Amino acid sequence: VPPTRPFTFIGGDDGEWRVERIDAVAGDSLQSVATVAIVDRLIVEPSTAAGWLLRGVTSNERYATRREHVLLAAAQPALGRPEATCAALIPIRKTQQWWAMAQDERRAILEEESRHIETGLRYLPAVARRLHHCRDLGEPFDFLTWFEYAPEDAHAFEELVRILRHSREWSYVDREVDIRLVRP
Amino acid sequence: VPPTRPFTFIGGDDGEWRVERIDAVAGDSLQSVATVAIVDRLIVEPSTAAGWLLRGVTSNERYATRREHVLLAAAQPALGRPEATCAALIPIRKTQQWWAMAQDERRAILEEESRHIETGLRYLPAVARRLHHCRDLGEPFDFLTWFEYAPEDAHAFEELVRILRHSREWSYVDREVDIRLVRP
Repeated sequence: VPPTRPFTFIGGDDGEWRVERIDAVAGDSLQSVATVAIVDRLIVEPSTAAGWLLRGVTSNERYATRREHVLLAAAQPALGRPEATCAALIPIRKTQQWWAMAQDERRAILEEESRHIETGLRYLPAVARRLHHCRDLGEPFDFLTWFEYAPEDAHAFEELVRILRHSREWSYVDREVDIRLVRP
Repeated sequence: VPPTRPFTFIGGDDGEWRVERIDAVAGDSLQSVATVAIVDRLIVEPSTAAGWLLRGVTSNERYATRREHVLLAAAQPALGRPEATCAALIPIRKTQQWWAMAQDERRAILEEESRHIETGLRYLPAVARRLHHCRDLGEPFDFLTWFEYAPEDAHAFEELVRILRHSREWSYVDREVDIRLVRP
């Protein structure tokens, strides 16, 4: 298990991923940019005046049980597969009401009610994923999730996103931006 | 419920808390300093060459159930009571083995086996406490816990610390420093 790893997503004009669209799903959107670059450190200021920075760190799992962890670990693919030329960066923020709940209450909504982990498992190994935590860093979002998938799995990915957005867990999401990208 | 709040503990020579002793309980100690100051932001560099900085943020609860949360909220005193002139700052780091465990495994060790929350409850309202998370900030410790108590409760506080250090949870602590302080 690696320790926590820092990442910065840089919205600008010289990144390796080309932005296809940026949609505000809930709350404010992000400024339109041409590309996104990903670097493995926390950057403080953008090198260009245009664009934005989103920072997050990988961390320990917060909800998965051992059984779920084993299922996920066995099925999840690595990032960087040559055929996975489509990506999504989905920053979300959850409400104060969500964060005020106790651990067992959040777990019950996330999995027993909303089946977040079980649903994600159904889309493995098509969709690779890396979750970044950023609430404790004082960032505008609580999580940044980065997904990679092949063009032929785009329909499956849309289905996954749609199911999660209709779950009870998502009633606690008050800001969400959906950034779709391709690797030229 | 407040959002996450950042704090920096500054070991130096002009803080409001006077250091009585610094003991390395496990792993490396911290440099000896005369005082500790607490500021409510994340400071990057110390103003003097001597001393150290420890940064952390308050965050959502990670293990407590709703029932435990209600019991804690009803009994825990605020920081800053005039009679609470004794304090402890206890930075700890847990092993990679701890962080690699799933949520249900960590919870089972922390509470069902080690009774961390239940034990803490027995020392309320004598001991006020604020937990700061710092693992995701890339800090040398995972947690900084700040405790305040009156001189007549010092014996009870020693008992609390001794019980926790003998728990199974503490077999996953590989660095711990115990800093005791008084407010003159």
